[in-house]
Order: sequence, then structure tokens, then C-alpha cells
Amino acid sequence: MANSICLLGGGAMGTACANVLAVEPTHDVRLWVRNPAYAHEIAESRENKRLLPGVRLADSILVTADAEAALKNANMVVVCVPTRGIRDVITTLKSHIPSEALLVSAVKGIENETLIRPSQMIQQLLGDRPVVAFGGPCHAEEVACGRPATVVAASDSLPHAEIVQQAFSNNNLRVYSNNDLLGVELAGALKNVIAIAAGISDGLQFGDNAKAALITRGLAEMVRFGEAMGAVPDTFYGLAGIGDLIATCGSQHSRNRRVGELLGQGQSLREIQDAMHAVAEGVFTARSIQSISQERQLDMPIAQEVFNVLFENKSPRTATIELMQRPLKPE
Amino acid sequence: MANSICLLGGGAMGTACANVLAVEPTHDVRLWVRNPAYAHEIAESRENKRLLPGVRLADSILVTADAEAALKNANMVVVCVPTRGIRDVITTLKSHIPSEALLVSAVKGIENETLIRPSQMIQQLLGDRPVVAFGGPCHAEEVACGRPATVVAASDSLPHAEIVQQAFSNNNLRVYSNNDLLGVELAGALKNVIAIAAGISDGLQFGDNAKAALITRGLAEMVRFGEAMGAVPDTFYGLAGIGDLIATCGSQHSRNRRVGELLGQGQSLREIQDAMHAVAEGVFTARSIQSISQERQLDMPIAQEVFNVLFENKSPRTATIELMQRPLKPE
Repeated sequence: MANSICLLGGGAMGTACANVLAVEPTHDVRLWVRNPAYAHEIAESRENKRLLPGVRLADSILVTADAEAALKNANMVVVCVPTRGIRDVITTLKSHIPSEALLVSAVKGIENETLIRPSQMIQQLLGDRPVVAFGGPCHAEEVACGRPATVVAASDSLPHAEIVQQAFSNNNLRVYSNNDLLGVELAGALKNVIAIAAGISDGLQFGDNAKAALITRGLAEMVRFGEAMGAVPDTFYGLAGIGDLIATCGSQHSRNRRVGELLGQGQSLREIQDAMHAVAEGVFTARSIQSISQERQLDMPIAQEVFNVLFENKSPRTATIELMQRPLKPE
Repeated sequence: MANSICLLGGGAMGTACANVLAVEPTHDVRLWVRNPAYAHEIAESRENKRLLPGVRLADSILVTADAEAALKNANMVVVCVPTRGIRDVITTLKSHIPSEALLVSAVKGIENETLIRPSQMIQQLLGDRPVVAFGGPCHAEEVACGRPATVVAASDSLPHAEIVQQAFSNNNLRVYSNNDLLGVELAGALKNVIAIAAGISDGLQFGDNAKAALITRGLAEMVRFGEAMGAVPDTFYGLAGIGDLIATCGSQHSRNRRVGELLGQGQSLREIQDAMHAVAEGVFTARSIQSISQERQLDMPIAQEVFNVLFENKSPRTATIELMQRPLKPE
């Protein structure tokens, strides 16, 4: 039974997870926020004004920048930082993370070039312990205020996935367990590349048919890539694959879909990045996927065209038209 | 080589298909419209003002209510009428349909109670000849004006599917061949029930996460049902399944999604039907699915709750909450 739970990261996802866990009165929930002044502000105002405005934080949640207070006796530690923050945060907190605590990743992304997954990074830093990772359609804004959602908790060790399933489930959040950790984490990263393609279609105003086709054929590429890496195809047909893909490609909030939309409207990657300040994960993932699929001779036409538009200066319209004009074949 | 092609039905889909086929200059395309006055109006104005406004019909298309002129020497006949019009139209035209013509169904739906598919109806009326059926995301409005789309042409006889694939493909429409006719037709009908569920979620303003989850879990039910009927699971993971599901559940034009949305907003089925004049196919399909899945003991919780809301007066909110509160399990 996990009842002392520490969330690492004061972003939208950490804050949302804290609220989800605080629904169960026996949970002792602590939210670790790196910046002490901001931790204090959230603790006092009971609102994460910058990253999750409008959502009231449950009274029972301890919000602190004090790692010792946050992590003491925690039997579950949930990592809720962006992919490229994982190594730094865990290295900083390592000495405070109890050796018996179950480790959970709420991170969607992948380390660029190497394609090291969040759970692998966590294991590299904290030793070969079971890690459970979340997947599925899960906009933090909606989960935080109790709108219904359904996600997957995946681990190579199913009993550990089930502990997380029990801890996070409530009347509004339904958690399925899954033991294809690799597939769930790959799906969460790959979907960002397809979301760029879907966004390009939006930017070119190609309509519902074209976008639905891109998502469907993009899913087929995700399955192909996942299988080549050793993942289970069914994972991609579930919440972590299709589910997350639908939510991301349809969302006005997705940074990856938005990058695609602006490309489709004729902006260059440089212009988009300058205006966005942060970079969408899928831009880097597109590069990694392209090099791995070339190396392994995987047929990934949509990912290849996203790469061509991002890095080879290819026109989005030409890229899309060429996708339509490939030789006819069976589905 | 099909080059004399007759489209049966002056609706949006028949008109759109005529324009698609007329892109190839060697095609002799005829559009049969039942009502002579309306056929004349379309032929003169080169626009189907009532059902596909704003789209100019290619000059080469013959538009006529004269069955003999429309069907003479046709080597491909494409049925583009609503499900419940098939028997009547084909019975009327039977004597004019050349015995050697390849028969194609662009109908999505299923005969209620019996679950007889469009291709089966066509075969019952015209004898046991190969039929090719279309599936996939295909809003007629978009296809008609050349926006990119990707569909499936399915037949138990792959060579016949390939003839249709060749005839319909052009730079804007990409056609995949498929030999799971049963799966493609079932997917086109089942997706309407899931679109009602997605619409209910929209009406209750449950957000992107809940809707993506309903679509994903709804797809799992479609696969389960399809497998029990003898269809190939992969079909549902392709354009006819996921693809059509995404386009329908995301579309403001889908009548089925709209029925769900209005139910979610608190209207009764009777009020909705009175205001809509026509009935959405998914309402009938929900009843057929429910009786078959009870008989075969298939686990179809979303379809069951759609049935409960439509016919058992269950509140949409209660139905959705009960879906969330089912016992936790592996995905």
C-alpha cells in the first residue's frame, strides 16, 4: 500500500497528480517544487498560478522545496519533470529518495539521439529498481479538476503497476495496468512526431479526411517502429498509443501539433522556435526516429516527411502530396 | 479496366465519387439521379445545390434519371444510396444493370435487426457476384473538391478490389486495397455507435481526455465484436476502423456524434429525432449490437451504455460515471 507519496516537479502534471492522489484521505501527499519562493507561493495561495491556473490545490497537500521534508519515508516517488530535467533533478535529490520507494514516471518524451526512455534514465541514476510509467490521453488541466480520464500504468513488473493503478484510481480517473513499459514509453514519444504531421495538415487546411488518414497511417508507423524495438503492437492500439495520439492531434494546446500547424502555414522552424521560446519534443524525436529507421531500414514515410520539412527545407505541401502519390498497395 | 462507370444516387457521396472518377479523362462517368427534375437541374447548373452545394460538377459527367442511358455498357456500378434505400433502388434498376459490371458499394451502414451488410444486400438482389465496398475517413464535401483523402476498397476478391483501387485513385485520393470485406463494412456501421458515445462526452463537456479514452476503448469493443463475427482485427486498426472513427467522432457534421451531443446536453431521443427529421444510423445499430452482444455474451460496455441512454432512459452522466467505475483491470 502506497500512502506516503512524493511528486517531484511543480509543473502542471505534478500539480495535477497531487490533486488526484489527495482524493484518497489516507494518502499523505507532498509536492516538491524546486524554487523555494514559488513553492511558498503555491503553498500559501493553494494555486499553481503560473502553470495550472484556476485549479485549487487540495488542503492536505504539503507543498515544499525542502527535499528532505518532501521525500522522508515516501513509499512512492513520482517524477513529473520534463525529459531533459530528469537527470539533473534526480541527481540533486538522490540522497533523499528512500531506497524502498516505488518509482513512477509521469514523463512523456525520450532522450534525444540515444532514445533512452525516462524509466531507463531513472534506473541509470537510482539503480535497477522497478519503475512504473504512465501513458495515455492525459491533459493535466483536465485531470486536475476531476474531469474523467483513463490512463495506463505500465511496468515490466505487473504487481508494481497494480500498486500505482490502485493509488491513482478514483471515480474520475480510471487506470489500466499494462506490462509493456517499453511500448508505453515509446508511444508517448513517437506520437509527438505524428502530431507534427497532423498539425501540418491543419495548417494546410486539408480537412478531416486527410488528418484522420495521417493519424491512422502514422499509428501504423508507430507500431512498425515499436515492434522493431521489441514493443508489443497491442500497446499502440490502446490508450498509450491511439488514445494519446487522438488527444494530442486534436488538441489546441499541444505544442507539437502547433509546430506542425505553423509549418503548414508557411513559417520556418527557426521562426516558430524563436516565437515559442521552448522547443516541442517532437522536433528532436523526429531526428532520432529518422536516423534509427534509416539504420534499420524501417518504412516510416510520414516520419521521414516530417523530418524533411523540419530539417531539409522541404515544402509541407510537396511533402504531403508526395505521401499521397506513393505506389498503391494493400493496407 | 473499368472505364464506363455509373454512380447510383444523387446524394453527396454519389456526386463526389462522380467528380473523383472524372479526373481520369478516359473514364465515361454517368450519375444516375432518381428524380428527373432534379437530375435535369444538376445537369444544367453543374451543381448539386441541395446536397453538395458549392462544388462544380466536371463537364464530362452525364447526369440523368434515365436508367438505361446511365447503365448501358457500364462495366462498373457504384451504389451510393443510404442503407435503407438499397433494396428499392436496385430492385427498380435491376434489369438495366449489366451482368458483367463490377459492383461497388459506397454505402456505410447495416440493415437493422438482421445486421445484413450493404454488399450482402446487393448480392441478394443481383446474385452472388463480387462486390467491392469502400471504407475509411471520407466526408464527401472534402473529397468532391479534391482535398486529400485516403480510403480502403475491400472485397473478398482482391483482384476486384484492385480494379476499384486503380479506377478511383488520383493525386488527391489514395486508395488502399483490402480483402476483409466483412470487417470493413462492420467497422463502418459500428463506428456510428461509438460516435454517439463520443458525442455524449462532448455534450457533457468532459474534455479531450475522456473523449480520446472513449474512442480508444470503443475501438477495442469494435474489434471484439468484429472478431466474434469473423472479421480480421487489423482491419479495425486501419483506415476503415480507427481512421473513420477519428474523422466521425471529431466532425461537426456527423449526425451520429450530434445525436450524442444533444443527449449529453439533456435532450431526449424523441426531441432530437423530431428536430433532425432523419434518424442517425447509429441509433438503430446500437439496438442491433446490443441484442447480438447479449446473445453472444460479448463484453461491450460502451455500446451497452449507449443503448441504455437511447432506449432505457438512463442519464448520460450516470452512464458515463458507471463506465469509469468498472473494476480495475489490465488493458
